Amino acid sequence: MSIRFEIIKECKKTNARLGKLYTSHGIIDTPVFMPVGTQATVKAMTPRELEDLGIQIILSNSYHLFLRPGYNLIAQAGGLHKFMGWKGAILTDSGGFQVFSLGKLNKINDEGVSFNSHIDGSKHFINPEKAMEIQMALGSDIAMAFDECTSYPAGKYQVETAARRTIQWAKRCKEAHHSTSQSLFGIVQGGGYKDLRIENAKKLIELDFPGYAIGGLSVGEPKSLMNEILDCTVPCLPNSKPRYLMGVGAPQSILEGTIRGIDMFDCVLPTRNARNGSLLTSSGKLSITNAKFKDDFSPLDSKCKCYTCRNFTRAYLRHLYISNEILASTLGTIHNLFFMSSLAKNIRLALAEERLLEFKEEFLSKYF
Amino acid sequence: MSIRFEIIKECKKTNARLGKLYTSHGIIDTPVFMPVGTQATVKAMTPRELEDLGIQIILSNSYHLFLRPGYNLIAQAGGLHKFMGWKGAILTDSGGFQVFSLGKLNKINDEGVSFNSHIDGSKHFINPEKAMEIQMALGSDIAMAFDECTSYPAGKYQVETAARRTIQWAKRCKEAHHSTSQSLFGIVQGGGYKDLRIENAKKLIELDFPGYAIGGLSVGEPKSLMNEILDCTVPCLPNSKPRYLMGVGAPQSILEGTIRGIDMFDCVLPTRNARNGSLLTSSGKLSITNAKFKDDFSPLDSKCKCYTCRNFTRAYLRHLYISNEILASTLGTIHNLFFMSSLAKNIRLALAEERLLEFKEEFLSKYF
Repeated sequence: MSIRFEIIKECKKTNARLGKLYTSHGIIDTPVFMPVGTQATVKAMTPRELEDLGIQIILSNSYHLFLRPGYNLIAQAGGLHKFMGWKGAILTDSGGFQVFSLGKLNKINDEGVSFNSHIDGSKHFINPEKAMEIQMALGSDIAMAFDECTSYPAGKYQVETAARRTIQWAKRCKEAHHSTSQSLFGIVQGGGYKDLRIENAKKLIELDFPGYAIGGLSVGEPKSLMNEILDCTVPCLPNSKPRYLMGVGAPQSILEGTIRGIDMFDCVLPTRNARNGSLLTSSGKLSITNAKFKDDFSPLDSKCKCYTCRNFTRAYLRHLYISNEILASTLGTIHNLFFMSSLAKNIRLALAEERLLEFKEEFLSKYF
Repeated sequence: MSIRFEIIKECKKTNARLGKLYTSHGIIDTPVFMPVGTQATVKAMTPRELEDLGIQIILSNSYHLFLRPGYNLIAQAGGLHKFMGWKGAILTDSGGFQVFSLGKLNKINDEGVSFNSHIDGSKHFINPEKAMEIQMALGSDIAMAFDECTSYPAGKYQVETAARRTIQWAKRCKEAHHSTSQSLFGIVQGGGYKDLRIENAKKLIELDFPGYAIGGLSVGEPKSLMNEILDCTVPCLPNSKPRYLMGVGAPQSILEGTIRGIDMFDCVLPTRNARNGSLLTSSGKLSITNAKFKDDFSPLDSKCKCYTCRNFTRAYLRHLYISNEILASTLGTIHNLFFMSSLAKNIRLALAEERLLEFKEEFLSKYF
């Protein structure tokens, strides 16, 4: 089935909304943070650990799966859910962002992008039609349109060209996409230029997608600019459709995004940082390899109820990281994902109880 | 409490026995295979995964913990069980084997061994008294005497010197060991020389340990010699005490050892091999990165009931290994440890049903 989005409650003081996203692989409570499973695995996590954490949806990367193991292989396996043993929902990105950030670009024009693999240098070509073919083969619940994402800062002409191309490509994606079990989201581009964002959003909604993403943010611009872009872009998007802010996962940005009407977030940082020993606590980030934790036999976060905090001390975690043990990544990732899940859950609870702004103040005053 | 060993049943056709080893951290069904948790973690496993696998006892390494994070720190944490969050039993080796195999040896004499750390080159000294101090601080359920292990092949004079020293050190260990909650096992040495083994075993049992290990095997000698050494050594050991064959974990060697009266085994290979993609199946070892598994959507071992085999295909596992994903190590280790646990369980079942030799034939005919 296609997705269905239901708004349970709208915040009276902000643009935030509490919702439910219905998919063939379960119901997702929104606002939601989606962990990233780049290569058909959320790094260091078994699917049952993700289930234990209450994760309802993950993101996976078309670009990576296209290169390895190949989307035809995953189609043969019965789709990405079956291939990776994940029963929850999956959103796949289109590969656009990775083609620009990881691949060695050869040529980009209105037709598509040719690039060399970051793994073995092999030559590839992706265009909107190919991006749809890949994602339909993967069988994710939500597919993303193939877009051109600009870096920050970028000149207006460059951003305008990319935004125009993003709309052309969105049309082609829509035409090429034929799946009743997968829903295709459009992506708003336009960089740091409000006029381009507004124009881009308006053109995009004419194409009538079942959901809309805002791309090209969290690419180096100041946080204040991200908020300004959201302030002008979100109101252009239809109220009844889910809104997804791509690549954004800093706790404060999730709060700011939610308040501005965003329903879905993803970011690789909570899992990547976990592997590097940067762990999220209610009183801010903590670098667990710091010498001061050597004989600290308290939990990572005494307020946290995750498996890691219930069973292990800072001293033990530090030992695991210093010793390069795999378990360090596992326990760190469990904790950071639990933290992100709890943040989203607490945001939803605050929304339900009409105290989102109070929750935001309270959370941020402890976190910073 | 100290350990208590109970023999439930003795095999009528072989020297094998079915037993129970009672410890303060649970009952261990023997014969048992003990996974190795070198640095206070069985690599890639959370304690709850080990519990799910039915693991009752693990081995940890004094040498590694002595160097990092240090035994005083672990004592401060309340002992190794608490430090690593493991509720089952723990056996610690004395560090002897690692001092010889990993450390850069400076000097060995009757007093003890000085060596340089394999991590940072720092200088250290371990003698029998120190080995006891370390293991008492770790608080393992079973501690091992500090011994001198020779490599294979080694000349008789060298082996004789090491065996003599092992007995002297065993006496000193016994004198230095004062713990009511930990049991100290003696270790028989004597290399590939039967006369030395018999002499060594006899001298060792005069010291009356609550359990005995056979060390210095599986160090490169032919399997037939290992069996011959067991054939002459095991009968010298008291029937009522548990017998532990150190560093041995190949399935065929576990079967041969069990038949010769061994109760406990440990080996780093099932976990190390798992991380390298060498996986144990009922029809032998399998190298999962082999190209032929690229599109093999069957489980690793269709007869296996482990989490990995119930949920993932060979094609997916191969993808994880090829992509260097942490989950590869986790799923591979779950499978290999399940395989080893199942082997020990099936051995115990066969013993209970008086069909150990039949089980051995059946297992080996499929495995090779």
